[in-house]
Amino acid sequence: MARWLLWSLAMRSLLHQSFDPASRFARLMLAEKGLAARLVETGVGNEALARHNPALTIPVLIDEPPTGGEISVAPVAAIAEYLEEVYRDPPLLPSTSAGRAEARRLLHWFDVKFETEVNALIIRRRLDAKTQGRRWGEPEPIRQAAEAFAWHFDYLNYLLERRAFLAADRLTIADLVAAAHISVSDYFGLVPWSDFPDVRQWYARVKSRPSMRPLLADRLEGAAPAQCYADLDF
Amino acid sequence: MARWLLWSLAMRSLLHQSFDPASRFARLMLAEKGLAARLVETGVGNEALARHNPALTIPVLIDEPPTGGEISVAPVAAIAEYLEEVYRDPPLLPSTSAGRAEARRLLHWFDVKFETEVNALIIRRRLDAKTQGRRWGEPEPIRQAAEAFAWHFDYLNYLLERRAFLAADRLTIADLVAAAHISVSDYFGLVPWSDFPDVRQWYARVKSRPSMRPLLADRLEGAAPAQCYADLDF
Repeated sequence: MARWLLWSLAMRSLLHQSFDPASRFARLMLAEKGLAARLVETGVGNEALARHNPALTIPVLIDEPPTGGEISVAPVAAIAEYLEEVYRDPPLLPSTSAGRAEARRLLHWFDVKFETEVNALIIRRRLDAKTQGRRWGEPEPIRQAAEAFAWHFDYLNYLLERRAFLAADRLTIADLVAAAHISVSDYFGLVPWSDFPDVRQWYARVKSRPSMRPLLADRLEGAAPAQCYADLDF
Repeated sequence: MARWLLWSLAMRSLLHQSFDPASRFARLMLAEKGLAARLVETGVGNEALARHNPALTIPVLIDEPPTGGEISVAPVAAIAEYLEEVYRDPPLLPSTSAGRAEARRLLHWFDVKFETEVNALIIRRRLDAKTQGRRWGEPEPIRQAAEAFAWHFDYLNYLLERRAFLAADRLTIADLVAAAHISVSDYFGLVPWSDFPDVRQWYARVKSRPSMRPLLADRLEGAAPAQCYADLDF
């Protein structure tokens, strides 16, 4: 289908940035629910952003739900709940209370803990430099980042010894938020795959889903992706 | 009812800290839903905490839901969704998609933005000093804090010109999270009430609810509350 046709059919937009992990998580949820959306690359100073989200964060989902009206939803945790309530099929949360709590715990694990402990060390610096039109010049805390990765991947490993997916025996928002975050580090070749075969196997399964394809096609100007990035047999 | 009896009836605990805004938010939700819970003051190094929440944050709700089993729920945004799904009456989220999105947006507004821009300036320093058994000695950025408060209260004012409560025309989680955060600053006498009569009027309404009573009775060792703290006609 021609791109403009998809756009005109979808009265739905996502204000996002291609390499922002939270934005990627929103794109994955939309795709898994089969919802087309116009992607609007949005800088933080953008006026549209202030109008739709006074907190000035991305992503923001602008939707016209089946019940009518236009609605702006942010931050990404609220987008997850909104999509799950309004577009139920397929569900991206488990059906039991315990399963739902586990999936939401992991959503915040990545949104807050992984973001602070891993992304902040390297990814954020590179992306910020990029947005500000300069090269990242400072030495990066590579060893610190490697340690943070190892700690987090040990934990994912622990979860995957017990379940087929992170929060349950089927795909949930926990896998999507995790894949969204990990994919950005993977673009820069920072993920220690060889030390974590079980996590790699899980990521290979998520990576081969159609919802991941547009993310794997993203390119950051002036920074080619690591070889493994779009390779399904990495 | 004797306290031990309430405890033994409630197969439900909240790992919390009395002056942690997120913990206070959880206590308010439980009270509004009429759910008794054993409150367990919990330091971050506590072993029970690691077992129930690997992210080592508070609050953590440990519940035995009507469907059976024991379940640990964290962080506070997940506790809000859990309580709303399992104990529906009274609802603390609006019924429309737009209203629910608005209430969730404001939950994260306080949990992230207010926490970073206001609490971090003064409250967190005082509480951290307290937990570490020392007096807060450094000069506090009072002017910065006053500016941050003014900015946030201007925004609450804007919301309250349009609605009786923050996210809707009735009480929702947005009011509870806001009151939880503001109440801690209020204990220290830091809230510029006289400049914001509409916000004060809204807070007076929330403050007079039975759910707020236990919070207003909390005392921090070695730091008496500001006069207005427990006064319903402040």
